[in-house]
Amino acid sequence: VDRLRDRSIRGGEEREVAPTGSEELSLTEKRREQIIKATCECIVEKGYSACTMQDIAKKTGLSKGMIHYYFSTKENLLISVMENLVSQWDRVIAERINDIKDPQEAIHGLLDACCEIAQDGVSYNMLVKFWAELSHKKAFEEVNANFYNHYREMIREIIEEGINQGKFKEVDSHLLATIIISIIDGLSLQWLFEKDAFSLMKAKNMAGELILTFLRK
Amino acid sequence: VDRLRDRSIRGGEEREVAPTGSEELSLTEKRREQIIKATCECIVEKGYSACTMQDIAKKTGLSKGMIHYYFSTKENLLISVMENLVSQWDRVIAERINDIKDPQEAIHGLLDACCEIAQDGVSYNMLVKFWAELSHKKAFEEVNANFYNHYREMIREIIEEGINQGKFKEVDSHLLATIIISIIDGLSLQWLFEKDAFSLMKAKNMAGELILTFLRK
Repeated sequence: VDRLRDRSIRGGEEREVAPTGSEELSLTEKRREQIIKATCECIVEKGYSACTMQDIAKKTGLSKGMIHYYFSTKENLLISVMENLVSQWDRVIAERINDIKDPQEAIHGLLDACCEIAQDGVSYNMLVKFWAELSHKKAFEEVNANFYNHYREMIREIIEEGINQGKFKEVDSHLLATIIISIIDGLSLQWLFEKDAFSLMKAKNMAGELILTFLRK
Repeated sequence: VDRLRDRSIRGGEEREVAPTGSEELSLTEKRREQIIKATCECIVEKGYSACTMQDIAKKTGLSKGMIHYYFSTKENLLISVMENLVSQWDRVIAERINDIKDPQEAIHGLLDACCEIAQDGVSYNMLVKFWAELSHKKAFEEVNANFYNHYREMIREIIEEGINQGKFKEVDSHLLATIIISIIDGLSLQWLFEKDAFSLMKAKNMAGELILTFLRK
């Protein structure tokens, strides 16, 4: 079951790559990744506003001009950081749920994957910093909406599968997917801010129980 | 039933007020509130980093020196903005649940109150901007932890009441309170970022059903 299809999270906009030959493409990709990684680290450390193109240049050892050659603006860099994170999340989730046929187990697999993401020390920290910029840039709002739609759709499909297999009761699967994402986001945030407040593992297990009790016929 | 007791959300730190006579106290309080309101507006508009003491002075019509007289640092101002918001949330929640004796109805009342807060156009916008600064200031982390504990405790008491009245099954009430906050935060955030993605009212109703189905004996 391939639950993760290739859905672009950046609306209609073109990706900023300048590929020519295949070797140059690989250097381009390598540089891009290096810059994205440095940006992510810098934003997590200092915050988005405080992180300058100069900081990023310093971290990568590249010139500021070179950073600008790959990414025309800091805004585009932040979008690429978020796209990169979403790709990582997709990989983590795919590993946990792609081979699972049972929708109940898929829900548990999804929650396991999301716990792994919450604990990676970067994802929700970056998300919060990205969200803080959302209201100031239309393009950020669109990127955020696209990746939320991507995950809502993925979870909706698991719920629909359960309904079709006769294992889940009939529910508004889009709305329940929205609530499942809420639980994941909300727990990850509370845990990010205060690791001793509760056990993330126990909360994940109770969340699974809560969702599956609701879906029981 | 008074579910909201006076719990300070700012750890051991002293509040920055310089009261003398009663008339002066009222002017002090009035000025403080005026400054806090302007700060909140400014941060929502421009973001925390971009909002300067000068901007706040301009918005209030007071001198920059006067702002500094009331709040020694921008950090303390942000903390006061958050404390002010928490007081507002407490009032909104108290109005909806203080007269309710039935714990099931109290859960619905709480969700209604939180929907009202999500829709006020300021609260979650400020929260996200506050969270983005958390990892950079120890004092912010403490304030955030205190108000999360305050709400966890409030919801835990509703659940315990339901268990004691024999209406809810035995559960880890601290953990379930954490999950209920997750749902509230998560839905409010998704809705803040994309109002057309789902109906907040329908999501609130389904969330109530989800929680009460889980608590059914």
